[in-house]
Amino acid sequence: AKPRVGYTFKSEGVESAMRRVLNQYRVKDIQSLPVIMKESCSIYDAIVTLFIEDTGSIFVVDENKYLSGIVSRKDFLKTTIGQADIHKVPVSVIMTRMPNIVTAALDETVVAAIKKIVEHEVDSLPVVKSRIEDEEEKLEVVGKISKTNIARLFLDLAANKTKEV
Amino acid sequence: AKPRVGYTFKSEGVESAMRRVLNQYRVKDIQSLPVIMKESCSIYDAIVTLFIEDTGSIFVVDENKYLSGIVSRKDFLKTTIGQADIHKVPVSVIMTRMPNIVTAALDETVVAAIKKIVEHEVDSLPVVKSRIEDEEEKLEVVGKISKTNIARLFLDLAANKTKEV
Repeated sequence: AKPRVGYTFKSEGVESAMRRVLNQYRVKDIQSLPVIMKESCSIYDAIVTLFIEDTGSIFVVDENKYLSGIVSRKDFLKTTIGQADIHKVPVSVIMTRMPNIVTAALDETVVAAIKKIVEHEVDSLPVVKSRIEDEEEKLEVVGKISKTNIARLFLDLAANKTKEV
Repeated sequence: AKPRVGYTFKSEGVESAMRRVLNQYRVKDIQSLPVIMKESCSIYDAIVTLFIEDTGSIFVVDENKYLSGIVSRKDFLKTTIGQADIHKVPVSVIMTRMPNIVTAALDETVVAAIKKIVEHEVDSLPVVKSRIEDEEEKLEVVGKISKTNIARLFLDLAANKTKEV
């Protein structure tokens, strides 16, 4: 059974109680919608999308709609100060590719996801469902967890606005 | 007197105890070092610094070393897809200027700082000390608080690695 919050308790320290509450959150509880593009999109179109959606990174999918890459503001900036024609070069040329993408699962704890974000120095992780197809693991993108989601959860906990999970 | 954590308590709910602990952290407890440049630096040099320091934004200071602007990856990206000569144009042309900069104070609560970060949709805030000079308020940059600091604090709290503050 999951721990409940909201009752008065008698024999547990504040620290362990807080640790317990903080560790009960799952990625699915706080994730947001991902911004997704095809590999063939131009870098220019991807940058325009980045501004329109006001997001920090875009997840790239192959022709079967499975995750194949991720591009961040940092990747785009590196490209735009270079010589590439951003109207012609597709995002697939500059994206970070599988298997170098760090991902999260829906049922993973938020704490585990934050650990990945901090250790790999990225702003967000694609939230994925894994399936085996032709003996290969394919990843379907179902969400996104970012530092912003974490900041919002922190605020909710500090204001006690969280729903019980 | 500041609340202490680490004792067993008998009459307080988990929620209010956690709220109390989360609200006791101050900006000075978790801030990091800022990356600072002069207004006259070229956009190109600023971008190079951004990559070398692996940071998301740079704080810009005037000739008296007071805060005058802030430039983010987003500002740089907007510029590099435009026509500007990034080797010649100084950062002061593209930076967000005072009084449009959202700042934090050392003794401000982390919760208040996160609220500003989320509401103004920025990645970090300059931490400043204010002083009056010639009847004008001047801001000295003494630190930086970012979403990464928040993510690290969340991890520390979840692992119970925090020092008492």
